[in-house]
Amino acid sequence: MAVKELLLDAQLLLAQLGELGAIGYDPAQGGRTRIALTNEEKAGRDQLVHWMRELNLDVRVDRVGNIFGILHAATVDGEAQPLMMGSHIDTVRNAGALDGCYGVLAGLAVVRAYRQADVLPRRAIVVGAFTNEEGVRYQPDMMGSLVYAAGLPVPVALDTVGIDGTRLGDELDRIGYAGDMEPGSTVPREYIELHIEQGPVLEAEGKQIGIVENLQGISWQKITVHGVANHAGTTPTRMRHDAGYAAAACIAFLREQVVGAAPDTTLATTGALSLEPDVINVIPRKATFTVDLRDPDEQRLQAAERRFADFLVAIAEREGVKVETERLVRFEPVTFDSGLVERIESAAKCRGLSRMRMTSGAGHDAQMMARIASSAMIFVPSRGGISHNPREHTDDDQLILGAQVLLDVVQDCLAAQ
Amino acid sequence: MAVKELLLDAQLLLAQLGELGAIGYDPAQGGRTRIALTNEEKAGRDQLVHWMRELNLDVRVDRVGNIFGILHAATVDGEAQPLMMGSHIDTVRNAGALDGCYGVLAGLAVVRAYRQADVLPRRAIVVGAFTNEEGVRYQPDMMGSLVYAAGLPVPVALDTVGIDGTRLGDELDRIGYAGDMEPGSTVPREYIELHIEQGPVLEAEGKQIGIVENLQGISWQKITVHGVANHAGTTPTRMRHDAGYAAAACIAFLREQVVGAAPDTTLATTGALSLEPDVINVIPRKATFTVDLRDPDEQRLQAAERRFADFLVAIAEREGVKVETERLVRFEPVTFDSGLVERIESAAKCRGLSRMRMTSGAGHDAQMMARIASSAMIFVPSRGGISHNPREHTDDDQLILGAQVLLDVVQDCLAAQ
Repeated sequence: MAVKELLLDAQLLLAQLGELGAIGYDPAQGGRTRIALTNEEKAGRDQLVHWMRELNLDVRVDRVGNIFGILHAATVDGEAQPLMMGSHIDTVRNAGALDGCYGVLAGLAVVRAYRQADVLPRRAIVVGAFTNEEGVRYQPDMMGSLVYAAGLPVPVALDTVGIDGTRLGDELDRIGYAGDMEPGSTVPREYIELHIEQGPVLEAEGKQIGIVENLQGISWQKITVHGVANHAGTTPTRMRHDAGYAAAACIAFLREQVVGAAPDTTLATTGALSLEPDVINVIPRKATFTVDLRDPDEQRLQAAERRFADFLVAIAEREGVKVETERLVRFEPVTFDSGLVERIESAAKCRGLSRMRMTSGAGHDAQMMARIASSAMIFVPSRGGISHNPREHTDDDQLILGAQVLLDVVQDCLAAQ
Repeated sequence: MAVKELLLDAQLLLAQLGELGAIGYDPAQGGRTRIALTNEEKAGRDQLVHWMRELNLDVRVDRVGNIFGILHAATVDGEAQPLMMGSHIDTVRNAGALDGCYGVLAGLAVVRAYRQADVLPRRAIVVGAFTNEEGVRYQPDMMGSLVYAAGLPVPVALDTVGIDGTRLGDELDRIGYAGDMEPGSTVPREYIELHIEQGPVLEAEGKQIGIVENLQGISWQKITVHGVANHAGTTPTRMRHDAGYAAAACIAFLREQVVGAAPDTTLATTGALSLEPDVINVIPRKATFTVDLRDPDEQRLQAAERRFADFLVAIAEREGVKVETERLVRFEPVTFDSGLVERIESAAKCRGLSRMRMTSGAGHDAQMMARIASSAMIFVPSRGGISHNPREHTDDDQLILGAQVLLDVVQDCLAAQ
């Protein structure tokens, strides 16, 4: 049998990225907003399903709304352990057009190459779009893939109440995406996610392809410091219990001591902070802030958590404040499948592309799917490292190269026994 | 001529404090709210004027709404250089009953002692209640006394737009307190302000009377740090421009280095702070915070401002952020009249009261009046140092002792040639 060459329809991929990116677009803001299970996101889902049907894929929706487009295999034997590509099409508020959508639509482009060559794969190929990856409206994020990988029971996910007071299951019903497929009922052999980097490393290093070999562990905490409100002018420093200063000291400590101990791997961010009563001449009674710690190495991540916890005890003692910590999220680092990582590296090398192995700083559906499938990710550069923002951008030729590598890796996987 | 003894009607003073404190009282909150030139504050003004008229005082209202009750002197010659006592009756939101009101009503109690003894003073005695001391609705605070001392032109004060969009002059008209007296048209020889300490020092030191010999200089700034929003997981630390971390480093620096350089006199407070976008996994694009620096010594206050300004330059350079500073308020320290301070000390000593000389940490109308009159203040203890709060409290016997010292000092001043 002659092997047909599979060709990527790059222009159609770019066109679909534009078309999907137009759904929920707000010209005044410059970005699009398709928060999970809203009317705008339903419109995005409808468009995706339409494209899947155009490719004659078998479209299935599971009980948490994950959408799968299946290109069945040449033989029934090939159905058992499909290869899955995927990502998500929900967005944050006022987002770029690429985060998530790129991985899903590139997956369709790979399938399209098979269809246009009229080739059936030896094993089934599935393109997945997971529900609520961003976690803007419902917590936790990466929920659809977490449920699919059996990390969260379906009823718990459906009962999640959003920041707008809605129940996730009700919203799934409302938009018509409460499917009947059982999440996880088909376990893929491989899960490959193509994604924009959402960080500045590839651009800074001048590389075209990032071969993602692991994914940082993530530790999110909410810290509440209880001090005593007092007059800023009449309270001697030695008599203060300043919740705001204690919070600032924590944030400075995180950067200077915790990150300082492992500056190349540990990341610490305080993104949210509020003071009470938040008045210029009143010593803050209360400070609430978030701590986002990440490291690709579980031991180092735990060490960072410990150092910070010790500091909280010390600052509470020193300033006479009370500190409460609430664990919001904790994911251990994920090491991707080394065989799949090597296939990606080989594919990029064969195409003569500049490349580097790297860690994913962001959470991705691949992190959940790695629990049940051999997984890895392919990154393309993000201009200025910007994401979750209308200025999110990757050059068209970089997007095409990434999709080409994805196609090559898929062919490579399916060629192997 | 036989000298009649002047007697303080302590019970009536306490009763009036309770009665004025009931105006604007909210049982749900536990405090009262009489923000300058609101309907509640008008009700407080009406009550005060009613009490002044009961004492047969000559009531005058000036163009910025300052209220004066004048006990005329025995002779026309005594009208030229009156003795003034005073403070304010506006409050912050959900305030205690004593801040300001105590000084005004104790002034009335002193005048009442003259009336009840049927004695006319050798020089006129004026009890003043100054407009908008708290500065909650209109900036700057201590506005009425500032205008009275010619520190702010009347038209500028009247054109002040409040946080609710109202014009101060219009609100004065609306509540019927736009008087025709020219502020500053009567310059008192002495200005004496009795006030609760609003700080913890007298209580901590176990003293009954604070003899306030100076008042801290105050430097208020608003700092805005412009960084770059980026993903908390994908942005290496060396590539960050974290506005939130820069703000935290500033706050830590203020406490550890600026206050650290003069821990007994320099005070630094960040009472208000906000981050943008204020999301757990986004490096803050923008941080806005306030800096309240105080010191009774102008040289040290300037040194603190300089050290902080230098740090802002350094942190902007180090973190690659842009820093804007806006000067909100700057008052030089005030040294009160040494002769008047000695009279207060003598009076407290004659009564056998425990006492200490001290600095006022808060701003007061006396600070403005010191520009045109020999001024000083008398403090009584604040339980727990708490003020601007429903839990503001001074024991009744301490309130009475303070008013007694005020009466003694007034008699002493008026006895002198």
